[in-house]
Amino acid sequence: MPGREEFNDWYNEIVERLELTDKRYPIKGMNVWRPYGWKLMRNIDSLIRHEFDSTGHDEVLFPLLIPKDQFAKEAEHIKGFDSEVYWITHAGLNKLDVPLLLRPTSETAMYPMFSLWVRAHTDLPLKIYQLVNTFRYETKQTRAFIRVREIHFFESHTCHVDFEDAERQVDEDTKILRRFAGKLCIPYLLCKRPDWDKFAGAFYTLGIDALMPNGKALQIGSIHQYKENFSRPYDIQYEDESGEHRYVHQTTFGMSERLVGTIIGIHSDDKGIIIPPAVAPYQLVIVPIISKKGAVEVMNAATKLRDEIASAGIRVHLDDRGLRPGNKYYHWEERGVPLRVEIGLRDIEKNSVVLVRRDTGEKSFVPRSGLITAIQAAMDAVEKNLWDMAEEKLKENILIVDSIDDVVISEDEDTASGIYSMPWCGSEECAHAIEEKTGLGLLGVPSNRGNPEYAGSYEGKKCAICGKGAISMVMAAKSM
Amino acid sequence: MPGREEFNDWYNEIVERLELTDKRYPIKGMNVWRPYGWKLMRNIDSLIRHEFDSTGHDEVLFPLLIPKDQFAKEAEHIKGFDSEVYWITHAGLNKLDVPLLLRPTSETAMYPMFSLWVRAHTDLPLKIYQLVNTFRYETKQTRAFIRVREIHFFESHTCHVDFEDAERQVDEDTKILRRFAGKLCIPYLLCKRPDWDKFAGAFYTLGIDALMPNGKALQIGSIHQYKENFSRPYDIQYEDESGEHRYVHQTTFGMSERLVGTIIGIHSDDKGIIIPPAVAPYQLVIVPIISKKGAVEVMNAATKLRDEIASAGIRVHLDDRGLRPGNKYYHWEERGVPLRVEIGLRDIEKNSVVLVRRDTGEKSFVPRSGLITAIQAAMDAVEKNLWDMAEEKLKENILIVDSIDDVVISEDEDTASGIYSMPWCGSEECAHAIEEKTGLGLLGVPSNRGNPEYAGSYEGKKCAICGKGAISMVMAAKSM
Repeated sequence: MPGREEFNDWYNEIVERLELTDKRYPIKGMNVWRPYGWKLMRNIDSLIRHEFDSTGHDEVLFPLLIPKDQFAKEAEHIKGFDSEVYWITHAGLNKLDVPLLLRPTSETAMYPMFSLWVRAHTDLPLKIYQLVNTFRYETKQTRAFIRVREIHFFESHTCHVDFEDAERQVDEDTKILRRFAGKLCIPYLLCKRPDWDKFAGAFYTLGIDALMPNGKALQIGSIHQYKENFSRPYDIQYEDESGEHRYVHQTTFGMSERLVGTIIGIHSDDKGIIIPPAVAPYQLVIVPIISKKGAVEVMNAATKLRDEIASAGIRVHLDDRGLRPGNKYYHWEERGVPLRVEIGLRDIEKNSVVLVRRDTGEKSFVPRSGLITAIQAAMDAVEKNLWDMAEEKLKENILIVDSIDDVVISEDEDTASGIYSMPWCGSEECAHAIEEKTGLGLLGVPSNRGNPEYAGSYEGKKCAICGKGAISMVMAAKSM
Repeated sequence: MPGREEFNDWYNEIVERLELTDKRYPIKGMNVWRPYGWKLMRNIDSLIRHEFDSTGHDEVLFPLLIPKDQFAKEAEHIKGFDSEVYWITHAGLNKLDVPLLLRPTSETAMYPMFSLWVRAHTDLPLKIYQLVNTFRYETKQTRAFIRVREIHFFESHTCHVDFEDAERQVDEDTKILRRFAGKLCIPYLLCKRPDWDKFAGAFYTLGIDALMPNGKALQIGSIHQYKENFSRPYDIQYEDESGEHRYVHQTTFGMSERLVGTIIGIHSDDKGIIIPPAVAPYQLVIVPIISKKGAVEVMNAATKLRDEIASAGIRVHLDDRGLRPGNKYYHWEERGVPLRVEIGLRDIEKNSVVLVRRDTGEKSFVPRSGLITAIQAAMDAVEKNLWDMAEEKLKENILIVDSIDDVVISEDEDTASGIYSMPWCGSEECAHAIEEKTGLGLLGVPSNRGNPEYAGSYEGKKCAICGKGAISMVMAAKSM
């Protein structure tokens, strides 16, 4: 893993060297997904599809373009996005009567339709999601996967009979998040954002943050409770059992291609990146060890092995290029393939293969008959180890302090000392004071729906600012 | 299947009634993909992904936006698209220095990058594809899936060392098309378009057309040979084995969501639509036959059946709603689910189930032990029957005539008598004369890479216009 100082340069360089993305596209912040990067993203998409499908969400696809008048219906929402949307003013040779914008997020595209779809309590809950690209005119320095202007993301949108049912949806979302992030080996903080940093239009926002190697926090997604904030302006009403008309309560949950950036950032070592098995474009690469004798035999055995592993549903690649094995090892280690199988003439004679883990370098001789089981077990072990290492790193970098005076701010703009956690009295005044005195941004109060234990306990402690009794911890960090 | 006259109204109504799409989105020609329609589209996408992946194409994703100056590099191309692109002129509160357009197709997005990626003959062939939405400002009457302004489509783009290798790619594309259209049960015409109707910038275009129930042709895709027409303006050169620099030869292949419209149009009867098994959202629906006695036993058996069928990789749905079986039959027949399994107490006792085909209504009693095999066989039979019926219909509606005087033009704008095929001398003059005298558009000369036998033989025949010896048949139709 690169050190705090090296991270920025290392990251910017490796995403292109491994052909995950190409930043040379002639629009800043809009990059090309190359085959290896896009395979990784698509595997991440498949995982979340599986989660949503198995929790009763339906996949849909809404139009990209939103008429200006629909966009303007929720006052807070438009205030939040006005300065970062792309405007279409002309089509063909005509000026449009109503300008259209590219979705920065899809509330204002979906909710006019929800208003038509929801009629009675029997239509609820309505649970849908889509996987699309979204567009935000970033004015900050762009960075592949992390801060781009065309963003690949998922967004789920739900409607409920009341606040409590919407809260149950937030609970479900946090459970989906736990399973999903587990497969991606990304430990995260789940914090209720301060009011001044919640999503434009939300009742409250749970921010999802990961720790990057430079010590900064990276927001990788969020879950929002909207209450009736959107259903009122968009008139999404239902008739309840007694015939009364009520507004629905809504939630959303979204995460973006920042997940790719996070995987690259947190699962890496001197050899390159390490991709969690659940989303690796190739979960296993086979390198045939060819010597003068028995080349055909080895290639045949390797091909048979490839087919057998593939038919077990494992994403396998046979590297049959005319290169030396060492070069192939280097190539695939750098690209993060979690497992490697080596097979040579001696292995064929012994009816076994060599299985190598990317994360630990550990080699084992596996009998041919038990290979699929051994591969599955090795993938589980890699997943567990990647999670444990990343969680250890996160814990190490959460700096639990009692007083604002214990906060040490790195003077280097590109790095941070970690994520601070401190006791807080609950007053908005003290929250603002933390931001002002440290220059850090508040991630918010650790949610019980996440892993609040990462943040330490506030019990018996006093507010880091005013010294009154604390009612929670609050987390603060430099964000990427 | 609706008659010629009923087709338009029937189509416009059924796409919404079956909840495939919602046309009430507040931008004309930009519709919402509802869950059932989007599942169908995604299954079509999976099929083509499988075809491209297994022929050595890599999936990528290019940005949606294209700077005006890149778009303008190939003169013919911009002439062809200038009047139908959406222009972004502002972002946030700023006016953009260089206007951006939404891709109408991705040549001008991809080829500046190809120019960076292709260096030497060892980089060739380059074969990539993407599945994206594309945008065209249609001025004609819009129609769901068939003429929309946001179009879901796939596009493959390839680069080759020379014209011959690019021709081999066109051959491969036509083979992919044959397999793919076979699974969709869409028989098609493959015609080399006349020069004045080829794709803007192409050397030649093979148009892919299907027959719709109103007697009109619907272009569902195309394959283009570009020769060096794009590689010169975009400077895509490689160094050949002797160290010389040469321009690559390029091809593209694309088809769109019109495939969904075609399936709906051509596979339908009085009960509703019939979806080919390979792409059906549900390939099989289970309807439990519940009577007063043994309700729990039947539901348990139905659930077990569902799990067993699902684990064989079949997309199955258990309809456990509290409705009468007849209502469920009606519901799923209308929506085109190719197979239905009924299971009641008596079936459990006999250790069998009832299997019903959607296309023929044929019922059979299948012993429980051979069920998966029977389902697979039934799906194959439905696929074959849907293809055969549609091919028969296509053949019936190809009107082979000797002279232009035999062409009968329907006066009704919304219908056509079918697709005409006639002998042609090969002169551009006579081709124009056919269009002028009949008011039909030329689909072009039937390609040997398709099924030229549909068009009849030109041998020994004389040009339908000038009476000189024919060198091919030429096809003409009203297009949707």
